[in-house]
Amino acid sequence: MLFLSEQNMKQSVTMKDIIDAIDETYHIYESQIHQMPERMQVKDHDNTLLLMPCLTDDAMATKLVTVFPNNQEHPTLNGLVVLNSQETGEVKSVLNGTFLTGMRTGAVGGSAVRHLSDESASSLAVIGTGTQGFYQAIAACTERPIKDIYLHNRSKDKLESFKKSLMDWMGEDINVHIAPTPEEAINDADIVITATTSHDPVFPDSPHMLENKLFIGIGSFQPGMREFPQSLYTIADALFVDTEHAIVESGDMAVPLEKGWITKDSIMTMSRHIEKKTQINSDNNPGTTVFKSTGMALFDVVVANLIYKKALENNTGTKLSM
Amino acid sequence: MLFLSEQNMKQSVTMKDIIDAIDETYHIYESQIHQMPERMQVKDHDNTLLLMPCLTDDAMATKLVTVFPNNQEHPTLNGLVVLNSQETGEVKSVLNGTFLTGMRTGAVGGSAVRHLSDESASSLAVIGTGTQGFYQAIAACTERPIKDIYLHNRSKDKLESFKKSLMDWMGEDINVHIAPTPEEAINDADIVITATTSHDPVFPDSPHMLENKLFIGIGSFQPGMREFPQSLYTIADALFVDTEHAIVESGDMAVPLEKGWITKDSIMTMSRHIEKKTQINSDNNPGTTVFKSTGMALFDVVVANLIYKKALENNTGTKLSM
Repeated sequence: MLFLSEQNMKQSVTMKDIIDAIDETYHIYESQIHQMPERMQVKDHDNTLLLMPCLTDDAMATKLVTVFPNNQEHPTLNGLVVLNSQETGEVKSVLNGTFLTGMRTGAVGGSAVRHLSDESASSLAVIGTGTQGFYQAIAACTERPIKDIYLHNRSKDKLESFKKSLMDWMGEDINVHIAPTPEEAINDADIVITATTSHDPVFPDSPHMLENKLFIGIGSFQPGMREFPQSLYTIADALFVDTEHAIVESGDMAVPLEKGWITKDSIMTMSRHIEKKTQINSDNNPGTTVFKSTGMALFDVVVANLIYKKALENNTGTKLSM
Repeated sequence: MLFLSEQNMKQSVTMKDIIDAIDETYHIYESQIHQMPERMQVKDHDNTLLLMPCLTDDAMATKLVTVFPNNQEHPTLNGLVVLNSQETGEVKSVLNGTFLTGMRTGAVGGSAVRHLSDESASSLAVIGTGTQGFYQAIAACTERPIKDIYLHNRSKDKLESFKKSLMDWMGEDINVHIAPTPEEAINDADIVITATTSHDPVFPDSPHMLENKLFIGIGSFQPGMREFPQSLYTIADALFVDTEHAIVESGDMAVPLEKGWITKDSIMTMSRHIEKKTQINSDNNPGTTVFKSTGMALFDVVVANLIYKKALENNTGTKLSM
């Protein structure tokens, strides 16, 4: 059995590899050659243990995630992915699921940047500078020649350390700006990524500020959570989701549908968009596009299997005798 | 995170430690201070992935088991146990779940020997010489001064290697006999353990052969599976199960109930027996006793937590950075 730590995984794959795996996942999702049962939840007072098994014809994996919202010194989320052989059932690998989740969620945003943003997009706003925001920024920069990143966060505490981590990863070629307000963050950005746990829109309801940008919403994963204001839906030329579930799971789709700002027909899954190569905007006008992700276990199993294969090729990780 | 292989676990705990943990588990089961959701099953043609989370007030663990019935060169069952911190959700340990299951299932039988057999019991029959039968024999010998073990298996192929493994573990003081028929196996045995996947009783329906013995049924875990004949139920002085579920899950309880050979009132859980210290037989007559086990995830979480703590004390296992 091969154990893969965050360090091992970083040595084995690039963000580009994982974005490719996300695109492959959309192909599997569209073809329906997979099994993804509804995740199992075990509640213990405020804490939750989530069990997410998933099968493709090439891999069998389970992600276990604990959510301990009252953790102060330790991360709120902790994850582990167990990869079993599809041929014998034996455990092939155990992977750091916290890092895998960060990278694959980043890559889901990265795939949206690849397929939905203007090729010359050079500026990015990130609202919400937690772990997810970090990997989103890395992934966006992997796909587009980003020169400027504008960071905004409600609490200012972690902004400087986030900026430093970003510059450590990306090098000095990128200008990272701290924006005191959401308006200043998004004003000059071609791509806007929101990765907060907000229950209310995180930037103003001003249509003229939102035009001709790609918006990627990562944070809202419950119907009561929302990051995008009403006018974004009014001016949006196209709306995408990573899964059918996102439409009911996220307040960024459920609320606009309920209020009648959009219709269900106007929402397309990314898998369909990629498979059908739909045209979303003209060459002269990038248009206003919204992508909303809530994630799924199928991303985890495909990415875990990729990382395992790459780690084997690179002779990375800790081989353990059972 | 601490990885514990079969070898590490053998170095950290004895079978006696695990039988003690089984008795502790019965106390938790009776007190209901635990959460044990129905296990999740994911089917892939003939193969199954089982997910079994369980929480006590001291531990949070999930056992993942794959069942691949068509495996030829590899074991049919493969297991892994993930132990999370109850305080922070972080992964504390990953343990070989195949070995843990063997040991704890052996120890469930061992606990039954401890609480239900005559203290001077010196002979044991094991019908079904697979992995489970092996650990059952070890556990029974841990609790009673066993001098003779009689082995029977439908196929003779693995009998000699089973005998050798048993003598390697136990030393030369125990006489291991290979019995050509089930009758010869049980004839002189004080304790009879069955660990087969049979759909029909594995020894004859002859009441005079069955008197004054303790019968431990490990194999049948579905209503269509049975190991014990009708007359055993007619002469039995006491009937025990490891969990309430065993009554519906196993054909060794479900069929006798359905046919009217026994009534539900005559079945007692081991947890209740231990808590209430019920008297099952007189001093002069050991009586005929039946214990049926189908197992539960609560055993796994308590045993995994014990092994983890003992391994820490002994500085055993592989420490891994996540």
